[in-house]
Amino acid sequence: MVSKSQIKLITSLEQKKHRTKMGLFVVEGKKGIEEVLESNFELHSLFTTQDIFNTYPDRTHIISEVELKKISRLKTAQIGLAIFKIPFRNEIKLEGLVIALDGVRDPGNLGTIIRLCDWFGVETLLCSLDTVDCYNSKVVQATMGSITRVKIHYMDLPLFLKENNSHFKAGTFLEGENVYSSEIPKNSIIVLGNEANGISAKIESLVEKKINIPQFSMAENTESLNVATATAILLSEYRRKENY
Amino acid sequence: MVSKSQIKLITSLEQKKHRTKMGLFVVEGKKGIEEVLESNFELHSLFTTQDIFNTYPDRTHIISEVELKKISRLKTAQIGLAIFKIPFRNEIKLEGLVIALDGVRDPGNLGTIIRLCDWFGVETLLCSLDTVDCYNSKVVQATMGSITRVKIHYMDLPLFLKENNSHFKAGTFLEGENVYSSEIPKNSIIVLGNEANGISAKIESLVEKKINIPQFSMAENTESLNVATATAILLSEYRRKENY
Repeated sequence: MVSKSQIKLITSLEQKKHRTKMGLFVVEGKKGIEEVLESNFELHSLFTTQDIFNTYPDRTHIISEVELKKISRLKTAQIGLAIFKIPFRNEIKLEGLVIALDGVRDPGNLGTIIRLCDWFGVETLLCSLDTVDCYNSKVVQATMGSITRVKIHYMDLPLFLKENNSHFKAGTFLEGENVYSSEIPKNSIIVLGNEANGISAKIESLVEKKINIPQFSMAENTESLNVATATAILLSEYRRKENY
Repeated sequence: MVSKSQIKLITSLEQKKHRTKMGLFVVEGKKGIEEVLESNFELHSLFTTQDIFNTYPDRTHIISEVELKKISRLKTAQIGLAIFKIPFRNEIKLEGLVIALDGVRDPGNLGTIIRLCDWFGVETLLCSLDTVDCYNSKVVQATMGSITRVKIHYMDLPLFLKENNSHFKAGTFLEGENVYSSEIPKNSIIVLGNEANGISAKIESLVEKKINIPQFSMAENTESLNVATATAILLSEYRRKENY
């Protein structure tokens, strides 16, 4: 059974301010829940129509499909909904390549970027305070479990970049150097910008190298690459240069 | 004013069978409409709340915001909705690199892939018959105008690949050769597969080389790359090898 207070808690976690206040976030669907259960994230409570998760019986509530439908945010509710504790990350691990996002707003883009960081072995992702919250359910869903493996930190990004001395700072700009021929040091932070406006002026002034993915077609009015596909190409290119 | 029969036509074009039968598709929003108006696609009719498009007054209908809201499929209707004729493409231009999709189902993925083809100068995109329709409004929206520049053909893809002699056939598979070190001829068709199941067995048997984007992290349960990000990396890598 789901109690009224549990429904209230789950509904409140749709909002970032409540997630931050409670230190909790929601994961839906069998695969997503299994991925997070296997990680070192701590389970708060689990609501499921099928007793298949074999873990923490004291925090597992078997519920009906009608009840699941009531608490689910998915068009088609899937087997279960779990609440996990947002991990507290004190220390920022800066080693090798780090990605930083300056105002990325679309949950799908952030989810894809987290998944790409996971694939390309980027352990730390820095996000400006106006980047969409990574514990937003659409982001969590889009990461396909990668959210448990990439360490994500929200921060005053301009201040952080200004004070950091260990890493080289690069960013993507239309007028930047060709990514295929430009060299980037092993310890670098690469900044990617907002979907509509790119990198903010404040961060532009802190970047030591501007890089660009060249366009190979002649069309003049082609839209510049989406931030998630640009991240895919940059990470691929960085790892290729390092390894092959 | 929008007549009842016009509303009926616009609504019917949400379905692929009607788009195919009528040879028409819908574009919404100022930017999207302008992009298609500037191309060689032919306008059928334009419904707008602001007379800003300066073109084809005989096919332009000034309507109220209430009327636009009635015919729009967007959450927030934007300035106008246009109907264009689907271009008839008789001949398939096979020159240089060609991308082929085997059962890509997600409109956002197809839209991103069309946009990537445009950026990387891939003129021809082949789609299996079970790939999502490129004139689906979500796809059109996601291409950001690139749909007017990339030539897209739906076909019996296994048959086409079997009968084609001009191009080398490659495809992405988990057990494939490392994309960074594998060579692909100038005239190649690269096949990408369905989101859940990859490339079908029928097409697998026709592929001459299997390629793969290696994973750079140690995590064992990382999801394989999404088809759109995989396309981004493949196209980037192909053009890099060719040009740098």
